Amino acid sequence: MPLKMSEIAAGIKEAAEFLKSGDCFCIVSHINPDGDTLGSAYALAGILESIGKQVQVRCASPIPPRYSYLAEGLKLSCTDPRQIVAVDIAGISLWGSLWEELGGRCDLLIDHHVSNERYAKLSVIDASASATAILMLELAEAMNVPLTKQIANAIFTGITTDTGCFRYSNTNAQTFEAGMILAQAGAETSMINKLMFETKTRAEMEIMRLALDSIEFHYEGRCAILTVTLDMREQAGYYDEDLGEIAALPRRVEGVQCGITIKQKSEDEFKISLRTVSGVNAYEIAGRFGGGGHARAAGCTLYGSLEEVREKIIEAVGDFLS
Amino acid sequence: MPLKMSEIAAGIKEAAEFLKSGDCFCIVSHINPDGDTLGSAYALAGILESIGKQVQVRCASPIPPRYSYLAEGLKLSCTDPRQIVAVDIAGISLWGSLWEELGGRCDLLIDHHVSNERYAKLSVIDASASATAILMLELAEAMNVPLTKQIANAIFTGITTDTGCFRYSNTNAQTFEAGMILAQAGAETSMINKLMFETKTRAEMEIMRLALDSIEFHYEGRCAILTVTLDMREQAGYYDEDLGEIAALPRRVEGVQCGITIKQKSEDEFKISLRTVSGVNAYEIAGRFGGGGHARAAGCTLYGSLEEVREKIIEAVGDFLS
Repeated sequence: MPLKMSEIAAGIKEAAEFLKSGDCFCIVSHINPDGDTLGSAYALAGILESIGKQVQVRCASPIPPRYSYLAEGLKLSCTDPRQIVAVDIAGISLWGSLWEELGGRCDLLIDHHVSNERYAKLSVIDASASATAILMLELAEAMNVPLTKQIANAIFTGITTDTGCFRYSNTNAQTFEAGMILAQAGAETSMINKLMFETKTRAEMEIMRLALDSIEFHYEGRCAILTVTLDMREQAGYYDEDLGEIAALPRRVEGVQCGITIKQKSEDEFKISLRTVSGVNAYEIAGRFGGGGHARAAGCTLYGSLEEVREKIIEAVGDFLS
Repeated sequence: MPLKMSEIAAGIKEAAEFLKSGDCFCIVSHINPDGDTLGSAYALAGILESIGKQVQVRCASPIPPRYSYLAEGLKLSCTDPRQIVAVDIAGISLWGSLWEELGGRCDLLIDHHVSNERYAKLSVIDASASATAILMLELAEAMNVPLTKQIANAIFTGITTDTGCFRYSNTNAQTFEAGMILAQAGAETSMINKLMFETKTRAEMEIMRLALDSIEFHYEGRCAILTVTLDMREQAGYYDEDLGEIAALPRRVEGVQCGITIKQKSEDEFKISLRTVSGVNAYEIAGRFGGGGHARAAGCTLYGSLEEVREKIIEAVGDFLS
């Protein structure tokens, strides 16, 4: 259950008091870090250093090099932390090895995931926030810390990555207001958006090329189907579980009512993602094969050869097209 | 020369008086219309209908179907216009056939292009605005017209398209502030961003596939080169002059210092676009072949066979890589 706004404001205030009373902080980001957990961590690091605290930022996974600007200008001088703070970490399993390493405790947890396990001494969870980084903006205000360029850049990074550059449905007036405040504070919004959304690794570019090569159209272009096999991953050197924007490609083609992505999991196991436009119910199609999801996005798992699986799903989609 | 802010405010006020005094308006968008000229036109149409005026929106080019939501809820009942208003049209040539058809005159011109020819009786040009649509927001305020969902959607469309979804360097605090105001007024920001930036035609998807197939890397991945030939355009059925996001693809690959796009213009004429990262001067590379541009983006034209042209440019780039 999300807290009410007054409870969140009280939580932010309590968090501010705790942060002012501490001296040497370890701020933890979740494993396989994204822009929100890292942006929130480095924003909080900047806020704490602004008021003379010692800080370190930790993550059990390697931090991708494109985030290196987040730490620019920070001292990160804490070597023996006494206070442990988690940002954007919904559950203990997402700490990776750090939960045990840091003594299995968390003093303060700041997050926006509705599913958060509230495992900390003080948990401040605002599920209405587009990103955990939004809460760092509120924290800076509550602590009377002026927004430096480093803090503004870090908060903006969290917000823009968690909203898909202001595209996802979690984008709201508060998100744009935060953008305004951060731009006024000197955040390099254009540079950050380019860096986060326009840069690809060679493996990503290569898997995208192979995926585009695989697109087939059926039912007079109303159904598009894209396949990513294990061989293609091998060829591209791309092993991420998440296909990123590739999974959304088939539905993005004009005129397509149902976009299908087939992702090979093993020799004879295939994960099917369905994305549909209004009027075609993805949930019903997936339901035929024991899958689930929502009206516009659903999924299921099919077994057999790639050809068998492809035929089965194309046939099923045909029954649902308008 | 851009006007000073006080002059712009005065211009907006004068424009508001003119609009209140008229009765039947023709609002003109520029040829090959984009989201800003159309968003501004339909926003102004909504503002004028809100205060009981008759309006029509005209464009000498066909309006792409993805913009159809802009007119939702409007009457567009003006058949014999008496006042002519141009939005986002920097020069008379961009009216296409409508300049003559409408009698070769313009009563009010609202734009944000610094190069605007100021050909109207009253020209309000604010080159500091991210989009002409921003000026519609100021106009609505000056005229005391509340923002309906239709007006808010139209203004948001202009702003997001002209800033590349808040990515281009013309994005500033005012842009985000406008986003906040429009989201508060009920603009469907997420839907619009998806529609404007995620949908592709089959020809666009196909030319992207072929373009990705053509990417080559040189100098240990520090230079990426992408080619779009006339044959490829033919095969994809893609004839737009503008390659859209394709031209930016080579530079987007991690580790690439210089991205090159070769666009075939005719049998033996090739347009070269160079995009570089900090440390490699695109302008100097293009200058060697009589081209021009900026440090990060420049271009030139080369003649010969594709193979000759490719060799020439790759060799030149090699001299400038760090």
